[in-house]
Amino acid sequence: MTLWLRFAREDGRTGFGILEGDSISVHEGDLFGANVPAGESLPLAGVTLLTPCEPQKMVCLWNNSRAVAAKNNLTEPAEPLYFLKAPSAYLASGHVIPRPLSYEGRVIYEGELGVVIGKRCSGVDEAAAADHIFGFTCVNDVTALELLFKDPSFPQWTRAKNFDGFGAFGPVVATGLDPAALTVKALLDGRERQSQSMDDMFFSPAKLVSLISRDMTLLPGDVIACGTTVGALPMKPGAKIEIVVEGVGTLSNVMG
Amino acid sequence: MTLWLRFAREDGRTGFGILEGDSISVHEGDLFGANVPAGESLPLAGVTLLTPCEPQKMVCLWNNSRAVAAKNNLTEPAEPLYFLKAPSAYLASGHVIPRPLSYEGRVIYEGELGVVIGKRCSGVDEAAAADHIFGFTCVNDVTALELLFKDPSFPQWTRAKNFDGFGAFGPVVATGLDPAALTVKALLDGRERQSQSMDDMFFSPAKLVSLISRDMTLLPGDVIACGTTVGALPMKPGAKIEIVVEGVGTLSNVMG
Repeated sequence: MTLWLRFAREDGRTGFGILEGDSISVHEGDLFGANVPAGESLPLAGVTLLTPCEPQKMVCLWNNSRAVAAKNNLTEPAEPLYFLKAPSAYLASGHVIPRPLSYEGRVIYEGELGVVIGKRCSGVDEAAAADHIFGFTCVNDVTALELLFKDPSFPQWTRAKNFDGFGAFGPVVATGLDPAALTVKALLDGRERQSQSMDDMFFSPAKLVSLISRDMTLLPGDVIACGTTVGALPMKPGAKIEIVVEGVGTLSNVMG
Repeated sequence: MTLWLRFAREDGRTGFGILEGDSISVHEGDLFGANVPAGESLPLAGVTLLTPCEPQKMVCLWNNSRAVAAKNNLTEPAEPLYFLKAPSAYLASGHVIPRPLSYEGRVIYEGELGVVIGKRCSGVDEAAAADHIFGFTCVNDVTALELLFKDPSFPQWTRAKNFDGFGAFGPVVATGLDPAALTVKALLDGRERQSQSMDDMFFSPAKLVSLISRDMTLLPGDVIACGTTVGALPMKPGAKIEIVVEGVGTLSNVMG
């Protein structure tokens, strides 16, 4: 298993590398292509973490949890149901989730597994899809809960999910993992509130990549957020929210 | 008025410049920042048009037409209602709109005015918003009509609007125009099917920039598609669809 991350140095220069304990083995080249060690080790404490990649799009699933469906009397969807987060929503681990300018209601966390695409794909079958996955990351699909159905004529999935900082992911992308063995947890102020194993998902990561690639071309660095399970709750100002994928890492943010 | 475009040369190199008749005055620098003429003129016929900018996001309005609202018994929205198109959906003028891999139903055009952001903005008021608009372009908000409400539990605005090539825009960005005087037309196989003047819109371009910038930071090159008026119709394979904004240009595509 390898843990990849991106960082900014104190002078603003950005880079990427492999997390090795408390240090980063800096690499040169393309995260999703050819790269080599640069021969430099940096202390993790001396850099600012960036999102581990720069997705052109983040595709976020709705109703991909058996537990949520059972709780809300939803039926298993025939096809993946999703919305998008734009790059302006992305936030790295360690940063504060800003309060929206145009909304004062409850803001909830949603802990999710993030699938990071490694190779351009369009119309790949499920067997080939696994080979197009680069790795996995932790996602917090932050949501302005009271906006979703505020307008009775148009559910506002996009707006409720796209305030600046509402698409937190990281701290790393882990490669070389078997996703079937992963668990996703959410800890609010240190207390476990969500725990999801992969058999909670209607659509597995490979199935999602295959089906969504039939709708739109997926590119290296794009992220599919696999949908949350039960236990999503509001975050008060100052709350600490951690999304933990065992073997991957902990995405940690504070609500502003 | 200035008409900006991006292009690819035969050898693949890309560039940008100003359209002057049938030629391009090639420019160097940043389209949204400092740039200067490169001292080179290229015949338009010798290059391939690209989308005139590379938006990180395209924000697309729903229910922003008084005519559509009257026809469908919709009330005037209190706030802008929108969805997103991802970069994988973008398509330049002159290219074929691909048939979706996962959908065989009707595909409609929706002619719209596109607002191109020129300066980063967050929470700008309406008066300041106009100063953050770089210019205007033509948008075809292509839609897989029968997907929208295929799943009764979740309207699929994102999926129906995000197949590859379903976010066509161009051919240019026009600067130095008064948007109040613009009209947007759609011609299907040469026959006019849509015609929209700016007073059809509930939210003007400046109002949209102001309000949406309170939801998410807008960046140079981002596009807001202002929503379509009545007259959107299916495109059969081989149909030619032109979106015309007078004074800006004609976005021309063929349905695959």
